[in-house]
Amino acid sequence: MGNRVVCDISISVDGFVAGPGQSREQPLGGGGAERLHSWLFEAQDENRAEIDAIVSAGAFVMGRNMFGPIRGEWHLDWQGWWGEEPPYHGPVFVLTHHPREPLTMKGGTTFTFVTDGIEAALDRARAAAGDRDVAIAGGAATVNQYLRAGLVDELRTHVAPVVLGAGERLFTDVPGLELRLLSARATSLVSHVSYRIVR
Amino acid sequence: MGNRVVCDISISVDGFVAGPGQSREQPLGGGGAERLHSWLFEAQDENRAEIDAIVSAGAFVMGRNMFGPIRGEWHLDWQGWWGEEPPYHGPVFVLTHHPREPLTMKGGTTFTFVTDGIEAALDRARAAAGDRDVAIAGGAATVNQYLRAGLVDELRTHVAPVVLGAGERLFTDVPGLELRLLSARATSLVSHVSYRIVR
Repeated sequence: MGNRVVCDISISVDGFVAGPGQSREQPLGGGGAERLHSWLFEAQDENRAEIDAIVSAGAFVMGRNMFGPIRGEWHLDWQGWWGEEPPYHGPVFVLTHHPREPLTMKGGTTFTFVTDGIEAALDRARAAAGDRDVAIAGGAATVNQYLRAGLVDELRTHVAPVVLGAGERLFTDVPGLELRLLSARATSLVSHVSYRIVR
Repeated sequence: MGNRVVCDISISVDGFVAGPGQSREQPLGGGGAERLHSWLFEAQDENRAEIDAIVSAGAFVMGRNMFGPIRGEWHLDWQGWWGEEPPYHGPVFVLTHHPREPLTMKGGTTFTFVTDGIEAALDRARAAAGDRDVAIAGGAATVNQYLRAGLVDELRTHVAPVVLGAGERLFTDVPGLELRLLSARATSLVSHVSYRIVR
């Protein structure tokens, strides 16, 4: 239980982490949802500390929809949204009901498919992370599951000055979740607001 | 049109500015909604700059529900939620469909009831504010109306580390609202995140 479990998530001012109508062609959904992540691509220098924190995790856990197309089964040749060299550069555990052999990508990313639930996936990520953090990489449903189960230590929201109006929300069905504010910092495209989760 | 129009609003991490079940007995609603405003009462020193900004407005506009009980007509002897000396210390224009004589309270607060719409109320507040800001004081429905009409210059959210799970949301039905992030600052009980509204 030594590893800290962290979660970084970009979110709109109205609480959405993805827009409406997510699909294979539009994995973040519509309504301008790509602007949630502008800070990661257009302003790396001024957000360097937060980006470094994200990539410093020793292992990642992600939901099935974050890895593969939203609707229907993934094809066994699906290798994620990120091209040949995904940005994780480490072990990624993908929650799914469909067993699949592990997938090794360029740059040190491996996708391992875990079919026995969120706690098992977290255990495997802890074992793989060494003494580094384990990151819950998304999407919203997966983050909400881990929050609900009391398994997250630190939640780092990245609030983009964008109103989406519809889509997938963070913080749904997490009764009694207790947060302590750790820090807030604004750059030109995002405010970084971090919380410790109180057990 | 010289006055800047500002809006300060306390909001939960899941986007609610009031909890569920608002009533005369529970004007902020349930679900722990009073914790949205803890920073205003329990931590005034560390939040002094933001509190000073709020009270520096020259005139205020508020919705009818913010002034009076949620359900049914207000009684003509209703004098607001705030006791004999409300914290506004200046002219307050209350949006309503029910005409009523102005009400003068201790400490310089006057409530004037405006029945001809949000633009008329704003005009009267501008005229009363001198060269100071006009503040849209809430509640959420009123703030959303002014946002929708493009009449707010600066939105200052005060995000409490609280999950309400239900209640009244900010940012509903404000399509195309464009924000620019101005600043973010955390104190122990709240993060202050301010936006300029782009016309």
